[in-house]
Amino acid sequence: MIKASIIGATGYVGAELARLLHSHNKADLVCLASRSYSNKKFGSLYPGHPCQDYILNDINLKEIASASDVIFAALPHGISCDTVLKLNDYNVKIIDLSGDFRYDNPSTYEEWYNIKHPSYDLMKSAVYGLSEIYRKEIADAKIVANPGCYTTCAILSLYPLLENKLIETSPIIVDAKSGVTGAGRNINQSLHFCEVDESFKAYKITHHRHTSEIEQEVSKAAGENIQIDFTPHLLPIKRGILETIYTKIKSGVTEKQIRDAYSKYNNEKFITILESDNIPEIKNVTGSNSFVSGYKINERTNSLIIVSVIDNLIKGAAGQAIQNMNIMFNLDEETGLNIGGWYL
Amino acid sequence: MIKASIIGATGYVGAELARLLHSHNKADLVCLASRSYSNKKFGSLYPGHPCQDYILNDINLKEIASASDVIFAALPHGISCDTVLKLNDYNVKIIDLSGDFRYDNPSTYEEWYNIKHPSYDLMKSAVYGLSEIYRKEIADAKIVANPGCYTTCAILSLYPLLENKLIETSPIIVDAKSGVTGAGRNINQSLHFCEVDESFKAYKITHHRHTSEIEQEVSKAAGENIQIDFTPHLLPIKRGILETIYTKIKSGVTEKQIRDAYSKYNNEKFITILESDNIPEIKNVTGSNSFVSGYKINERTNSLIIVSVIDNLIKGAAGQAIQNMNIMFNLDEETGLNIGGWYL
Amino acid sequence: MIKASIIGATGYVGAELARLLHSHNKADLVCLASRSYSNKKFGSLYPGHPCQDYILNDINLKEIASASDVIFAALPHGISCDTVLKLNDYNVKIIDLSGDFRYDNPSTYEEWYNIKHPSYDLMKSAVYGLSEIYRKEIADAKIVANPGCYTTCAILSLYPLLENKLIETSPIIVDAKSGVTGAGRNINQSLHFCEVDESFKAYKITHHRHTSEIEQEVSKAAGENIQIDFTPHLLPIKRGILETIYTKIKSGVTEKQIRDAYSKYNNEKFITILESDNIPEIKNVTGSNSFVSGYKINERTNSLIIVSVIDNLIKGAAGQAIQNMNIMFNLDEETGLNIGGWYL
Amino acid sequence: MIKASIIGATGYVGAELARLLHSHNKADLVCLASRSYSNKKFGSLYPGHPCQDYILNDINLKEIASASDVIFAALPHGISCDTVLKLNDYNVKIIDLSGDFRYDNPSTYEEWYNIKHPSYDLMKSAVYGLSEIYRKEIADAKIVANPGCYTTCAILSLYPLLENKLIETSPIIVDAKSGVTGAGRNINQSLHFCEVDESFKAYKITHHRHTSEIEQEVSKAAGENIQIDFTPHLLPIKRGILETIYTKIKSGVTEKQIRDAYSKYNNEKFITILESDNIPEIKNVTGSNSFVSGYKINERTNSLIIVSVIDNLIKGAAGQAIQNMNIMFNLDEETGLNIGGWYL
Repeated sequence: MIKASIIGATGYVGAELARLLHSHNKADLVCLASRSYSNKKFGSLYPGHPCQDYILNDINLKEIASASDVIFAALPHGISCDTVLKLNDYNVKIIDLSGDFRYDNPSTYEEWYNIKHPSYDLMKSAVYGLSEIYRKEIADAKIVANPGCYTTCAILSLYPLLENKLIETSPIIVDAKSGVTGAGRNINQSLHFCEVDESFKAYKITHHRHTSEIEQEVSKAAGENIQIDFTPHLLPIKRGILETIYTKIKSGVTEKQIRDAYSKYNNEKFITILESDNIPEIKNVTGSNSFVSGYKINERTNSLIIVSVIDNLIKGAAGQAIQNMNIMFNLDEETGLNIGGWYL
Repeated sequence: MIKASIIGATGYVGAELARLLHSHNKADLVCLASRSYSNKKFGSLYPGHPCQDYILNDINLKEIASASDVIFAALPHGISCDTVLKLNDYNVKIIDLSGDFRYDNPSTYEEWYNIKHPSYDLMKSAVYGLSEIYRKEIADAKIVANPGCYTTCAILSLYPLLENKLIETSPIIVDAKSGVTGAGRNINQSLHFCEVDESFKAYKITHHRHTSEIEQEVSKAAGENIQIDFTPHLLPIKRGILETIYTKIKSGVTEKQIRDAYSKYNNEKFITILESDNIPEIKNVTGSNSFVSGYKINERTNSLIIVSVIDNLIKGAAGQAIQNMNIMFNLDEETGLNIGGWYL
Repeated sequence: MIKASIIGATGYVGAELARLLHSHNKADLVCLASRSYSNKKFGSLYPGHPCQDYILNDINLKEIASASDVIFAALPHGISCDTVLKLNDYNVKIIDLSGDFRYDNPSTYEEWYNIKHPSYDLMKSAVYGLSEIYRKEIADAKIVANPGCYTTCAILSLYPLLENKLIETSPIIVDAKSGVTGAGRNINQSLHFCEVDESFKAYKITHHRHTSEIEQEVSKAAGENIQIDFTPHLLPIKRGILETIYTKIKSGVTEKQIRDAYSKYNNEKFITILESDNIPEIKNVTGSNSFVSGYKINERTNSLIIVSVIDNLIKGAAGQAIQNMNIMFNLDEETGLNIGGWYL
Repeated sequence: MIKASIIGATGYVGAELARLLHSHNKADLVCLASRSYSNKKFGSLYPGHPCQDYILNDINLKEIASASDVIFAALPHGISCDTVLKLNDYNVKIIDLSGDFRYDNPSTYEEWYNIKHPSYDLMKSAVYGLSEIYRKEIADAKIVANPGCYTTCAILSLYPLLENKLIETSPIIVDAKSGVTGAGRNINQSLHFCEVDESFKAYKITHHRHTSEIEQEVSKAAGENIQIDFTPHLLPIKRGILETIYTKIKSGVTEKQIRDAYSKYNNEKFITILESDNIPEIKNVTGSNSFVSGYKINERTNSLIIVSVIDNLIKGAAGQAIQNMNIMFNLDEETGLNIGGWYL
């Protein structure tokens, strides 16, 4: 059994990691750690959660590291990097769910996060944890930088098309809509029920941090530098992301070539590309680790419009982190993730 | 492995049965049958459902019965009784989720459902499937009449108190609030999104059928004939029931006696009675087979106010049906139901 | 034109007062005052609000009082009493929307609010602003204590029945469900969108302050001391209260007597008692100053079950406050309130 | 007083027209007509609606026409054209809210609606009722073709930019999100509360009819033929549209030129262009006839991203129809529409 711990267990991502690890039959959850709530019962924050009887530990890195084979760091960016830097001294694998280790180029991180990173070397040593793309590198990684929620959905949508040079590299427009768990558990006025309910809004247009993370990966897929338009929006629901992605098909490219490019995913357990003209909706993936995508060609404008969905807390965070753990420990990738959507 | 089939698989209860049986490691789902959608893919109704690739069968009772060890009938009342009557000729256990076999007294059924029942004997032979109360009888039953959602929540709340004669038998008021899945998948104007969203209503005041079912069971608990006030309401959410139950404490009864009465449930895996002054809310049980209850004594009025919650599709329907299957096949009662709530 | 000001304009009740006064054709809104947001544009908090271009004033009582014929105090209890005490020195009418002046007996207030009141005399001089019951006293009042939202709905439901001695005075059970605006604009963890959405809960069972306010008024209606069970619940919607009220009909009382008692309201513009067996739902009153009620007799238990609805921000707060202003200034009571529900 | 009637009064648009006309102080609502519900009380469908006491009339065109100065036709496309053709024989102004008279070119209509139109001449004689653009023509029109909801929002966003040739005419991407009232009152499985709640989806990608209507108008603004990508989505809310529109700024065009182009709207009562970097959300316009828009330039991609919101039932349908009536009858355009948003 893998001994797994979570640092920052009380946020929504941490709580979802705990839920999924609780039912993972090859992992034992040995420690749920939290700065703010140590010594409290996890169930005082989340009554009814399968881990409700756990007592939250303080964040004693040495103790946690010695008790664990793998540590999930579900901390805010800028805080996570310091924690991971210290954890790196121990013989423990680390899956970091913040943005702090996702970049090939530290200066991109520092520009978009406006934070000085404590260790460029460590950042570069981390493997970007998009499971289906970097499976081999993840298998051997000590530190995995788990991707962002918006970015997972966008990159999986675009990667095969860019890799096969089927679409133009500009314009690429990602119009993204997310449930409110994506904003985290910390409260502020804009997350008051009455502010969100029966409304809908865009936010951080042109400057959301995930822009840079998507660009990094799609640029690698294409072999050239790509800049995108990325607009996140807040849906009055708890879970789920839907992205509507607009691209231009290169001249002469056929629908069959697009279909063939996506066949790259044919053996992927967590990826479904719907047959032509079928388009997913968020409830198709709520509660599961699935990425589902469909597309439609606009013959009049030569646009390829892709619609993709994930559960932001699962494939967009905790689920993919566990998928990466499975890869790192040479388990069947589906272990603990064969959980089926809630469908409704 | 138990071979299990579902007749009426496309309603919300049927779909939830399918989801839960899919991940049950001692049961194989052999047949999903539907009159209206036979030969269609289950996923055409429920994309992303773990059973999405099943092809729906026609309702051929002989074939289904011969292929199955147990059949779940998730059909409308008045239709289910005819189906179960026919199924009874085969060597197969039956768990009926309609109201058609829940009554000790056929005339009570006929009065409240306004339907003539095809077989009083068969109705009487069925065991009422409230797992924690009738566990022994369920173990030996051929036909289990799975309880209603509202009734499960009400009876579990009241049973120990009445059995121990701690509360008056009148008044007993059950003010119940349910999510919309309780109304089923069939559409009508009052279930249009715009009719339900941002509103709330009571319905069928004084004459909801579950009234009679609750009365039957609480009367047995008390050893006397009880009549209650039961008011169901429709919440603008998908899943979950919360019931606020008002009773009068008998003179001289102490809080300790109430606590002791509920200790009947101490070893129940799916029942939690919260410690004094803690009260559950619906999200504590969404996605799980749990019944959670708390209570508060109003010293000024001598009232005992109980607040109880279940997921109407799980403990209120599909989950309890599988709990009953586990009992009938001598499995650990938790098998396939150790699913943990969604907590959020 | 009446010159009206609002102190505490940025809470939900204050904002609703501003909205309604803005379209009131006999009143001018002269001052929106706020401690926390003075000198900011009202529209920075509420973009799209009809008063979005107002600049919020600081709370300078002398200035506000000299500029106003009437001041609405929409402040938290315990703070409002001090403000009103100071305002009382000026020649200005005051409509207080807190709980600080609602009690006949200061000790009841101090017991339930756990606050020492600065002036028993002033509290006693205030008129309880339940418009339909205390219209005459309101007309001559200097200070009107506007009722609570839950209490308005409960008292209007029960008053005629108790006044005519048609129901028992015990048990009286008020099972109340409110939208989230009732909890106010201030944020806390339990009002985070993800905590409220798709859930439902009871709170403050047996000890919500409105219990005492309802008891005061129904006791006066009955001419005897009444104690009730009052349970508030939080609905995942923004606006509206529905109360399900359980009472026992006195022996020999007929449905006609109940109907006749409610005929007291026949000429009330804002009150509708539905015809037998019709029951209102929240969306019937959202956006209007209406109180709508229906009832059903349970012949089996001799219970009278009343279901009543109001918009908590309008008839439950800002609308009734303006209705009181109209009475105090001898205007047609409907002025500015003939606003029609949003119906959907 | 203008005598106004509504044919098709029981749909959501008809009901909203009735609500707004009810409080319009220069119009009398003389007839609410409905094929399906004639002789029923309007309040049997919409309890609490300000017009709840109206009795619905049958659709007797001659009678309605003779009693009315203006008739609002809120009928399905393909049915409305026949009705309007007959009404045209009478001396009555007509505001048609279907798609049947919105096109300059009947073949565009027939291609996108797949319906044969009964009178090309009549279609061409109708004036497209986008109030702020065609005010002069509307003033003299006998038949006004009220624009679609999505189209109003898109055209008002793009018109000044295209008219001033500040953006490229390709690509133009309109990613639109609408509340469920936009789908109308008729039920189908996909509008069941449980299908919509907590989910989100795109629909009719590349082939929604409003595509052709937007293209017609933006092509006129630009003076050249434009084809767009238009993707509608369904939000789990009742009211409101938000559109995120992606365009490319022409080389050398400055932000000031964009601001100046939008100054075209400076005197428009119902249009607000937010100051730089401010972006509206749906709740800013819920309940009002406002169109609010903001934009942001992506310096890295040279994209201009516009976010615009309307209430689909008001500025997107009933409100704009009344605005057009006001223009046709030479009233102040704001009459009856100075209604202020619900802001929350």
